[in-house]
Amino acid sequence: MPVRLAELAVRFGCKLRGDPDALVERVASLQEAGPGSIAFLANRRYRRYLAQTRATAVVIEPALADECPVAALATSNPYATYARIAQLLHPEPAFEPGRHPSAVVEPGASVDATAWIGAHAYVASGAEIGRGAFIGPGSIVMAGARVGDSSRLVARVTICKGVRIGQRCIVHPGAVVGGDGFGHAPDGGAFVKVPQVGAVVIGDDVEVGANSTIDRGAIGDTVIGDGVKIDNQVQIGHNVRIGEHTVIAGCVGISGSAVIGRRCMLGGMVGVVGHLEICDDVLVTGRTMISSSIRQPGIYSSALAADEAKRFRRNAARFQQLDELAKRVRRLERAGDAPEQGEDDD
Amino acid sequence: MPVRLAELAVRFGCKLRGDPDALVERVASLQEAGPGSIAFLANRRYRRYLAQTRATAVVIEPALADECPVAALATSNPYATYARIAQLLHPEPAFEPGRHPSAVVEPGASVDATAWIGAHAYVASGAEIGRGAFIGPGSIVMAGARVGDSSRLVARVTICKGVRIGQRCIVHPGAVVGGDGFGHAPDGGAFVKVPQVGAVVIGDDVEVGANSTIDRGAIGDTVIGDGVKIDNQVQIGHNVRIGEHTVIAGCVGISGSAVIGRRCMLGGMVGVVGHLEICDDVLVTGRTMISSSIRQPGIYSSALAADEAKRFRRNAARFQQLDELAKRVRRLERAGDAPEQGEDDD
Amino acid sequence: MPVRLAELAVRFGCKLRGDPDALVERVASLQEAGPGSIAFLANRRYRRYLAQTRATAVVIEPALADECPVAALATSNPYATYARIAQLLHPEPAFEPGRHPSAVVEPGASVDATAWIGAHAYVASGAEIGRGAFIGPGSIVMAGARVGDSSRLVARVTICKGVRIGQRCIVHPGAVVGGDGFGHAPDGGAFVKVPQVGAVVIGDDVEVGANSTIDRGAIGDTVIGDGVKIDNQVQIGHNVRIGEHTVIAGCVGISGSAVIGRRCMLGGMVGVVGHLEICDDVLVTGRTMISSSIRQPGIYSSALAADEAKRFRRNAARFQQLDELAKRVRRLERAGDAPEQGEDDD
Repeated sequence: MPVRLAELAVRFGCKLRGDPDALVERVASLQEAGPGSIAFLANRRYRRYLAQTRATAVVIEPALADECPVAALATSNPYATYARIAQLLHPEPAFEPGRHPSAVVEPGASVDATAWIGAHAYVASGAEIGRGAFIGPGSIVMAGARVGDSSRLVARVTICKGVRIGQRCIVHPGAVVGGDGFGHAPDGGAFVKVPQVGAVVIGDDVEVGANSTIDRGAIGDTVIGDGVKIDNQVQIGHNVRIGEHTVIAGCVGISGSAVIGRRCMLGGMVGVVGHLEICDDVLVTGRTMISSSIRQPGIYSSALAADEAKRFRRNAARFQQLDELAKRVRRLERAGDAPEQGEDDD
Repeated sequence: MPVRLAELAVRFGCKLRGDPDALVERVASLQEAGPGSIAFLANRRYRRYLAQTRATAVVIEPALADECPVAALATSNPYATYARIAQLLHPEPAFEPGRHPSAVVEPGASVDATAWIGAHAYVASGAEIGRGAFIGPGSIVMAGARVGDSSRLVARVTICKGVRIGQRCIVHPGAVVGGDGFGHAPDGGAFVKVPQVGAVVIGDDVEVGANSTIDRGAIGDTVIGDGVKIDNQVQIGHNVRIGEHTVIAGCVGISGSAVIGRRCMLGGMVGVVGHLEICDDVLVTGRTMISSSIRQPGIYSSALAADEAKRFRRNAARFQQLDELAKRVRRLERAGDAPEQGEDDD
Repeated sequence: MPVRLAELAVRFGCKLRGDPDALVERVASLQEAGPGSIAFLANRRYRRYLAQTRATAVVIEPALADECPVAALATSNPYATYARIAQLLHPEPAFEPGRHPSAVVEPGASVDATAWIGAHAYVASGAEIGRGAFIGPGSIVMAGARVGDSSRLVARVTICKGVRIGQRCIVHPGAVVGGDGFGHAPDGGAFVKVPQVGAVVIGDDVEVGANSTIDRGAIGDTVIGDGVKIDNQVQIGHNVRIGEHTVIAGCVGISGSAVIGRRCMLGGMVGVVGHLEICDDVLVTGRTMISSSIRQPGIYSSALAADEAKRFRRNAARFQQLDELAKRVRRLERAGDAPEQGEDDD
């Protein structure tokens, strides 16, 4: 469904430079756009593609609008504006309410009349499915769980017993919300399973990536705040609490009872040890291990970058003697009366 | 179903201090407990919550029982005793034997009359389901696989052909047991798939976490010993062998043909290279990479902890010159006739 | 079905030393083989098992054939030849074309008459299933997706809308191909979802491991080249491109828009940062983090190996002072007029 540039400008508060009646009907990258496409420029590293673009229009920051060889929709946040335009041009397909003949909805389940229950989906007795919710094919919603209004389980999602999912959430295929936390009490060389009697409570506007897992609480609940975005293959242990609008990239692991603040960003493969706290507004770069609490907003790292393997091995071998090396330097300083550090390091 | 403290004391061998007729019916944390709840104190860091607890009773070590402001069940292992009490108060829901109308059990499958086959589950011809086993919704048990007595596939579990699972095991949603190992023989720039003709053999009382994967053997079997506990998103390669009562935390990866001893504990995100051996009673801290065999029980580590990013980058840059730095220190020592290390390090 | 050694020799171009009429019917390891088994020796570390083997025949390199106490099939690539023999002796079970009564194939789906659609599988309207394709139990193929000829979704695989999978691919249980990429535009403290309008295009002869996830492109497609082999629990972000015959071991994470060359090998748990390029023929050892482009073929590493925990902690503490230590060494060199490096390092 083509849309006029004038309409986009008004709807999303952009300044239009170009033909208000020009039509766009899809998004594309600057390089691949053709007539009828709208592109965007948010990252200056793609600026070199601007001059040659064949897009009908480009969403762009005001300072660069004059460089744009085609129609420009100028806005202070081109990426967010692009995202909204893309949502308009590429909406999720609408669905008819109802249920697929192969779905199983047990007696005692409460399914809103405006929801959809897909093929081979299973809704247990005592589960609740809210207004306009979409339960995709192969998904499972167990007893006492609730999927809030307008939330979408894309396909093959497992929502375990008693889990509450807010409104407008999206849960991607293979995700498991509310599996047992990992609790085993050692006893005479073996282990006794610790029942995991808490649940998971997920706020509104949360996204959970494919094959991610969020464990139920051991006693209280695991809590994911409003607006949290979780990428694929993320593992969140029991009784973790994550503050609003925190973003968690792929393959992150968060151990039990960790508390993570609001507006944090955890890069890919970050690991967070259990029973610690990360304050609001912390950015953790990829592959970092957080093993103690962070109380100051800022950027944190711990991952060494790749090096040519032979050289890396030589340096890594020296790492194993590093404490010794530091002591040798200390001895040299003493012997030579060399200028010393204030610190007393051995 | 409320239980008298006297009964708990007798059943679990605790010394009761308080009203034997007081009733508890649920577990709770020290902080959140109210009347009718039983809490526990096993980790001394939570001792500060003891004085204010509103629990009806607390499971506690004898030395602290006098501090307990409410009834105390004193025992040398409060956590394990708590776990058993929690199992009593919060049992897995009982199930009627039988099969859901939407389940598919192929002719030639052997399903014990006391087992349950859930909604949309699939049991192939030649599969065997033992006494009191629970095959949760959406689970798949392929040809020749066996699920032992009283074992439970929670939901959406895949048990591939020929896999044998022991008794009283729990397999959480999304787990895949017996997928092909990763075997590809290089041949002229491409690869030939190596058929994975072994299976997976899992002992008794094993737990496998959500979305974990355990590959079938290339020729012989992959073997998981009795009492092994595996957390979520763990990957276990073909022909790995894991000894009894070893515990593996989330996001661990174990490469093919590694052999891991008994009573080991692998922290979250640990990586184990293939074709090596770890002896019994080894503890590996989170994020460590094991790239050669470990022959001594003990604690092993290799993960750097997070630091402020700028400082980390400065140190990491120096790491790339570490071998050079060590040589420079050596030269200084020689030049200055400095007190030397016995070692000859360059 | 037993096969004569003479037939194997002819079919796979080996030189046979031994009885051409001897029969083999299964593969086994050198150690465990008995009569009727064929074993192989490709890794010299297993040479010690050769003298005692009870196999009927061994696939072996010509230089070692004389050591073989039983029949030998000599070939320059024993592992690949073994793989082909194993495929012959242990073929995937044949299947009858058709569909399981519990499968759902929506009107408007195109399923070749020679394909199989398994129990509880779901094929959406507009999906295409090619000749001889196998859609295993619980698998989902969404609208507009295509599974190519002779490809096999083992079980419980999710192929999202519009994804194209080539010929002779194998996708293991729990894999998700075409989930949304992770795109969220920050806007005033919250995030706007960026629609992921690209797809995933997978070439021929690709294997995707259990519970791996490959995200659809944000605008263009995510592209996996012919012959790529992907192990379990691998995460591949949106718009990644992977060249032909690259091999990716378990638990690898590749961030969005990374471009990886041909014939690369990424070890287990490797992490690749987004928006960078790795050239052809790069080998990355396990656990390495690639955070900038690699333009030279070679071997790259960044993972420290495990050490005894106490010693590791001491060295790791020194790492946090490494920049300072290097400066102290510099000062010593200056003070002592020590022989200097050419480099100017502070």
